[in-house]
Amino acid sequence: MPDHVLPVARRSRDPKELLAQARAGDRASLARLLSIVERGGDDARVLSRLVYPLAHDAYTVGLTGAPGAGKSTLTSATIGHLRGLGREVAVLAIDPTSPFSGGAILGDRVRMQDHATDPGVFIRSMATRGHLGGLALATPEAIRLLDAVGKQSILVETVGVGQVEVEIAGKADTTIVVVNPGWGDAVQANKAGLMEIADVFAINKSDRKGVDETRRDLELMLDLTDLSDRDDWRPPIIATVGTEGKGVAELWDAVEEHRRHVTASGLLARRRERRLRDELREIVARRLEAKARSLCTGDSWNALADDVVERRIDPWSAADEMLRGVGA
Amino acid sequence: MPDHVLPVARRSRDPKELLAQARAGDRASLARLLSIVERGGDDARVLSRLVYPLAHDAYTVGLTGAPGAGKSTLTSATIGHLRGLGREVAVLAIDPTSPFSGGAILGDRVRMQDHATDPGVFIRSMATRGHLGGLALATPEAIRLLDAVGKQSILVETVGVGQVEVEIAGKADTTIVVVNPGWGDAVQANKAGLMEIADVFAINKSDRKGVDETRRDLELMLDLTDLSDRDDWRPPIIATVGTEGKGVAELWDAVEEHRRHVTASGLLARRRERRLRDELREIVARRLEAKARSLCTGDSWNALADDVVERRIDPWSAADEMLRGVGA
Repeated sequence: MPDHVLPVARRSRDPKELLAQARAGDRASLARLLSIVERGGDDARVLSRLVYPLAHDAYTVGLTGAPGAGKSTLTSATIGHLRGLGREVAVLAIDPTSPFSGGAILGDRVRMQDHATDPGVFIRSMATRGHLGGLALATPEAIRLLDAVGKQSILVETVGVGQVEVEIAGKADTTIVVVNPGWGDAVQANKAGLMEIADVFAINKSDRKGVDETRRDLELMLDLTDLSDRDDWRPPIIATVGTEGKGVAELWDAVEEHRRHVTASGLLARRRERRLRDELREIVARRLEAKARSLCTGDSWNALADDVVERRIDPWSAADEMLRGVGA
Repeated sequence: MPDHVLPVARRSRDPKELLAQARAGDRASLARLLSIVERGGDDARVLSRLVYPLAHDAYTVGLTGAPGAGKSTLTSATIGHLRGLGREVAVLAIDPTSPFSGGAILGDRVRMQDHATDPGVFIRSMATRGHLGGLALATPEAIRLLDAVGKQSILVETVGVGQVEVEIAGKADTTIVVVNPGWGDAVQANKAGLMEIADVFAINKSDRKGVDETRRDLELMLDLTDLSDRDDWRPPIIATVGTEGKGVAELWDAVEEHRRHVTASGLLARRRERRLRDELREIVARRLEAKARSLCTGDSWNALADDVVERRIDPWSAADEMLRGVGA
């Protein structure tokens, strides 16, 4: 048994104890804590309160792109590169479309398994479970948890280019958008969203035909994109071949250069602040949504709805009654 | 001055007075009341409470289809048909995409202007203004108002086949979906939604080529549609030429047949009850949404958000503080 894994008997279900053990290096406790984050609920709230003051300086790199673009392979190659530099790394693989998490998805991520036994690498899939607000709210909490247990570099990989995926990946400190030669068709649906969040482009599978056209296509779209709210950072475009590790060092150099840029310009601090304000607003909205769901159910709801149907009361007055005490 | 219009000086801004005048036949008061509904707010709530017990037996016919399908022309021809039968009719033209209402849109509705001076016809456009919950909530209130002032037949025409338009038109007692020969391309985006709400199909502009193919196409799609929740009503398909009034009598006969069907089967009552429950649920959700917006603004919000940014408090605890007293 490696020394960073504690015997099962010594592990608790209490968030506080689990956190202490995870901070001492116990990976299984960290995995349990991430499951708590995923599930949401009271334990997650307790954990969130414990973790928040402890987390402050991890750097997050988002990675998104159409399914099949080779994101996992590129992530795995990036892990290898960082390990070669002696750096530790944590990976969150986010799949809003899957009801499964943890092992279920990782089973498919054969490439990432290369690093499964490396204690300097922590990989975790997250999917939708009970968390109020879904992955959009669970992801920043998971990141803070990883930060609090000492992970300095966190890669956040999302599986697709849908609204939620792009939003989650776009909330990283640096976001890599992975495309392929001839990318047009695959991401047509959300090109504008991708242009908006990209800090660095990777043209992966660049051993295929069409790299130059894709680069021209991206440059043209960047010409048409307003970069002023990024302090005029123009996303560099890096050609990569994830399967061979080609271009991966250059890709990471571009990430580091972006990091220096946003740190020096103050954009990093402003972005992080905006993200926290957005997160707070989202939590308030989701909590009230949950409240609405709980109000619109049960006996008193049914009785009131019957009154509306029987025209004993109009819908707005009925809503007043339901919302009395809620101040809405 | 026609006798159903009162002099301006005698008209008030008070919903109660306006309602009394509208019920006495004053069209300008009715128009003002509809503006109140559109704007939402306190006056609209007062009005809603006054109107609700008065409204009960108007029959609503929804009419939707892609822009350019000839809905206004068909509506105008239907008005003509109903007037020929000696029936009064009210028309609500709903445009979720327009910030304008009343005269602004009606100016374009040249065909409908044929009926502008007929006291047996009342035509009104409605667009998005301040109403909480938008047209989805303003429309049923407008319908109840028209009902309360004695309109027995209300046509609800929506401009497009987007989610909101289809939803609004689909909440009528009978819904007509207007297509054209070779309809496929125009409504590709929401074919399933249209199949779900259609009680009657009109193939308008049926003097053009492709009517038979379109009919076969629709029949095929109906074969694949589960009609059990409509008590096995299979939507009839009527060929029309709105500009010439061709097929319009048959179209209305189909509406009347559907009405007899849903009345006899009890489906009409069940649908109306479900609509009211949905409306109540929607009002509660929108009210809480407005509450969330009002909470996430102002000095105390800013101070709390600053505390989160400065890590003096975590986002979930901050949300607890914001929501204290709201019970969420």
